[in-house]
Amino acid sequence: MLDCAEGVQMALRKSRISFSHLQAVFLTHLHGDHVFGLIGMLSTFGLLGRIQELHIYGPKDLERVFQPQIDFFCADSPFKIILHEINAKKQEAIYEDRSVMVTSLPLSHRVPCCGYLFQEKPTARHIRRDMIDYYHIPTSQINNIKAGLDWTLEDGTVIANERLTTPPDPVRSYAYCTDTTYLPSLAEALHGVTCLYHEATFAQEHALLAKKTFHSTAKQAAQIARDAQVGKLILGHFSSRYKDESVLLKEAKEVFPNAVLAEDRLRIIL
Amino acid sequence: MLDCAEGVQMALRKSRISFSHLQAVFLTHLHGDHVFGLIGMLSTFGLLGRIQELHIYGPKDLERVFQPQIDFFCADSPFKIILHEINAKKQEAIYEDRSVMVTSLPLSHRVPCCGYLFQEKPTARHIRRDMIDYYHIPTSQINNIKAGLDWTLEDGTVIANERLTTPPDPVRSYAYCTDTTYLPSLAEALHGVTCLYHEATFAQEHALLAKKTFHSTAKQAAQIARDAQVGKLILGHFSSRYKDESVLLKEAKEVFPNAVLAEDRLRIIL
Repeated sequence: MLDCAEGVQMALRKSRISFSHLQAVFLTHLHGDHVFGLIGMLSTFGLLGRIQELHIYGPKDLERVFQPQIDFFCADSPFKIILHEINAKKQEAIYEDRSVMVTSLPLSHRVPCCGYLFQEKPTARHIRRDMIDYYHIPTSQINNIKAGLDWTLEDGTVIANERLTTPPDPVRSYAYCTDTTYLPSLAEALHGVTCLYHEATFAQEHALLAKKTFHSTAKQAAQIARDAQVGKLILGHFSSRYKDESVLLKEAKEVFPNAVLAEDRLRIIL
Repeated sequence: MLDCAEGVQMALRKSRISFSHLQAVFLTHLHGDHVFGLIGMLSTFGLLGRIQELHIYGPKDLERVFQPQIDFFCADSPFKIILHEINAKKQEAIYEDRSVMVTSLPLSHRVPCCGYLFQEKPTARHIRRDMIDYYHIPTSQINNIKAGLDWTLEDGTVIANERLTTPPDPVRSYAYCTDTTYLPSLAEALHGVTCLYHEATFAQEHALLAKKTFHSTAKQAAQIARDAQVGKLILGHFSSRYKDESVLLKEAKEVFPNAVLAEDRLRIIL
């Protein structure tokens, strides 16, 4: 879960996402609109009898602000809540599990703030059934072949792995960058990302206001997406002044066509 | 405002209650389902530019729990947030303004907890226009007559106020009692209250569970209402085990007929 605003429990329910699927929460920064749903969600998880531990990542002050609340409101919690304070100024791997690696991305906001890059780990190559049958390769060896090993016939002939398999699915990646002033240097860390969420609080006509409030314009978000050659751009975190956010989308698409506006319960297949 | 659960901002908007009408918040106790909306609401009020100070009342630990959050998340608040920690074990007047007096009502829950009694202040008597005209009483004296003074004619005859006025509207009162185990002694403090909100977490078949968890049954809530001779009873704080809460209403009505179930955006004219 990326950020945890008030109302997150309702959002999870409406999205029909099982609470128990959640393993970690990554907070970009400690402003209320990004964190006010956390304590209520932790409390509900406790009431529901969760036992699996939950890891919460966030910048400086995470412990100072949340540990007392957790101690007070979740004193009887049946599951462990583990806070991980990270250095928002460093780009570094902060989380890893069987299938994904998460890296912090330093952003520039009024308070310590970082984005997060999720990179899927490489998956196995795909077996070519026809070739496996042709060379009578035993089932016990399939995992080795998937992992990239060649096959040696009884006469010593080596069959290159490329003949036995097709390439694995390309690894997918997702980056979440909010809240931040326009940071052109970010494009390097985001190079080739499958899908990028980037804040677009303002339209370009308010570029000065964006700079002053440490936010970005839709055009700037699109410039990052273009420079990083990402696959797709999701714009979000719109100022409430825009009754019709299509002005933001239009502006972004002029620079990076494959852009969409974030909306409640938007699902994107990577 | 009585208690301040997560989602309170949405509830206020849906009820079309202006945020600026809110002058004070009274928290019964510091369990999450009664307070998790507070910090987000305060934060929003600040963003909306509120300048009028807001008073927050609640039992022990109010300051310890909320002052650090307010200091961190509402550091730039344009309005003053004043926390008043009250002694939940004492029945005492804790708030007073031009039109209402608020008294704390000690309750019995797992943590320090109190209810609140709102008593309207007596309003002025109603002028009898016909008598005012008949005795040629000048406009400048009307407020005195409304306040109860008699009128003396030039010949010294005293006209009793009761001839010049009709009684004021009866004062109205509202009491809010949640969360609490069944407290028969509460009926005395609640005597004659116009409308009583009393928790009814369980049906009578779970009376033991109610006692163990420091909650009440619908029947017990009705017993309080009957013993206190209140005008109307609102049942609330239902356990989620009751898909159909009419069982609770039925049980209460057998003891106290003028009972209703609380529901979102219920409005009651006193």
